[in-house]
Amino acid sequence: MTKLQNDLLLRAARRETTERTPVWMMRQAGRYLPEYRAVRAQADFLTLCKTPELAAEVTIQPVDIVGVDAAIIFSDILVVPEAMGMELLVEEGKGGPRFPKPLRTAGDIAGLATDGAADRLQYVYDALALTKTQLASRVPLIGFAGAPWTLASYAIEGGGSKNFETIKTMMYDAPALLHDLLGKLAGVVGEYLVRQTQAGADIVQIFDTWAGAMTKDAFLEFSLPYMMQIIEHVKANSTVPVILFAKGANSAFPEMADSGADVLGIDWTVDIGEVRAAIGNHVALQGNMDPVALYSSPENIRTEVRRILEYFGNHPGHIFNLGHGILPTVPVPHAKAMIDAVKEISVEIRKEEQE
Amino acid sequence: MTKLQNDLLLRAARRETTERTPVWMMRQAGRYLPEYRAVRAQADFLTLCKTPELAAEVTIQPVDIVGVDAAIIFSDILVVPEAMGMELLVEEGKGGPRFPKPLRTAGDIAGLATDGAADRLQYVYDALALTKTQLASRVPLIGFAGAPWTLASYAIEGGGSKNFETIKTMMYDAPALLHDLLGKLAGVVGEYLVRQTQAGADIVQIFDTWAGAMTKDAFLEFSLPYMMQIIEHVKANSTVPVILFAKGANSAFPEMADSGADVLGIDWTVDIGEVRAAIGNHVALQGNMDPVALYSSPENIRTEVRRILEYFGNHPGHIFNLGHGILPTVPVPHAKAMIDAVKEISVEIRKEEQE
Repeated sequence: MTKLQNDLLLRAARRETTERTPVWMMRQAGRYLPEYRAVRAQADFLTLCKTPELAAEVTIQPVDIVGVDAAIIFSDILVVPEAMGMELLVEEGKGGPRFPKPLRTAGDIAGLATDGAADRLQYVYDALALTKTQLASRVPLIGFAGAPWTLASYAIEGGGSKNFETIKTMMYDAPALLHDLLGKLAGVVGEYLVRQTQAGADIVQIFDTWAGAMTKDAFLEFSLPYMMQIIEHVKANSTVPVILFAKGANSAFPEMADSGADVLGIDWTVDIGEVRAAIGNHVALQGNMDPVALYSSPENIRTEVRRILEYFGNHPGHIFNLGHGILPTVPVPHAKAMIDAVKEISVEIRKEEQE
Repeated sequence: MTKLQNDLLLRAARRETTERTPVWMMRQAGRYLPEYRAVRAQADFLTLCKTPELAAEVTIQPVDIVGVDAAIIFSDILVVPEAMGMELLVEEGKGGPRFPKPLRTAGDIAGLATDGAADRLQYVYDALALTKTQLASRVPLIGFAGAPWTLASYAIEGGGSKNFETIKTMMYDAPALLHDLLGKLAGVVGEYLVRQTQAGADIVQIFDTWAGAMTKDAFLEFSLPYMMQIIEHVKANSTVPVILFAKGANSAFPEMADSGADVLGIDWTVDIGEVRAAIGNHVALQGNMDPVALYSSPENIRTEVRRILEYFGNHPGHIFNLGHGILPTVPVPHAKAMIDAVKEISVEIRKEEQE
């Protein structure tokens, strides 16, 4: 294996000292880039995910265009329930992906195909392998998967949800059934991530996008244990660091810090310096600029980047990122202003503190 | 003034010992009640707000039907920008209230009518006075207003918003302009709440519904100071306690505990016992059941109520509530199961701890 030319992300994830703060953006391969839209004009969303050449192309675009310190494989978290037998629809302008036949009964859940599910995601591994080759060791490649709670939310609600009424009612009134589903998802996701590392992922992220909808107790019973099971499986079968991003689960930072994850992703509503101080030094942190701040002027974006870098301070273990995905209408020069500011200001901060 | 027959809410708000935990529900006068829907069939939403006889009727319904320990005046936070001259539309099935001419420029903000705005809300004071008479001292009457940040969000975005792009861009790129607007709103809201207390409100709540969209720094600069200005004005001109509910501003509990508010409302994502332990005893807490838990069985609702009461423990200063508004499709017996459970279990907990 060739040594990476830029391994800042991996070193920061392991809390090693770095000469500057690495930076990438959630949804960095996406609609805000004209180059991405040009590829999407040729293929629908799922075809793009399932065609390794196209997926690799859009995965690498932000490395070339905005200069991020890592590539994240272009895919979607919902390919996992699809590989378990659920019909997945991603239609233009219809309010996000949906499962027309959501899981509602014990029979629905019993009918999920766990055996061979990780095999049916071969197109993701192929895309990772091709991307890895095409990246030519420039930057690390990030693999990812959705957390069981978030995947179960989509699978049970049938799509995005405002209040999560169906899954939460199952949680209260049929908890054993929900645990059964979450266990199945955790098994498949764990194996899926291990296979991603075998295909070339240098680091993996677990996205628990809907963690913030839960009570802390529910998070500790229905989400975190399954993510920990996944982390344990990845750690037992690979050497890659794991990033855990449970958006909005901000009352469970102490428990997440002990989850086995190397890095915790944090959203923009918390002060990254306060979080670092509260949970101590045994995990790295990733975040946490408000995605909407990218609509402000490049000068103000720079001020916001400086604020976050200074709040974190000159400690090892910071990966700069947005606190959630980049919005599709952000101007590319604004995204680039953020990336450039992180690169420049984080070097300044290290120098200042040495003087 | 006649003494209240049930003043549990007021005593809990002042952190006095109570024989049981008082309980009410946000949006308790609302669409989940058939009796409310019958009144609404006669009048559109704003007419209902502006007709004291009808507003008083729906305000009192939940006291009679589900047995809450307080009535909250039926109104809407957006009547304040309307009283400042903005056209407000609340149309059926069109995705929430909206301002067809949102505030976008310095001229728009300069054109707001602050003088006399509190006078133009006379119909709210009339509704409070009538409700007070009709309640006949059974339970306290709650007045309320929206926080400047939340009102500004609606006024600038033109309605509900997913990402708050317009107000946040103003916040980053034209902060003085936003401060100007927030100051105007704070002045009107402060006077509006004082007038509500003069009309009969025994306690008032400030709703910062969209606080959770902000970074902590932004909350401390653009929201909390204006709420503190309002609290100070209310305290200087009345003797009523103030509840501050900044939904999702969970990283700013310590700062909110020092805001001058008597009670902090908290959402369901935090552990109420942990919050109590973290911020100490100088404020009461209100909350924090997940509104979606009301879809589970009455037996499971009871379990959830017990969990929250036990987490808070046998300390003074707890007002039981949902962590956000009740959802319109919750069955009435489920709402009543929550209310009854709070009344019964909180007495049990007090006895257990005495034995």
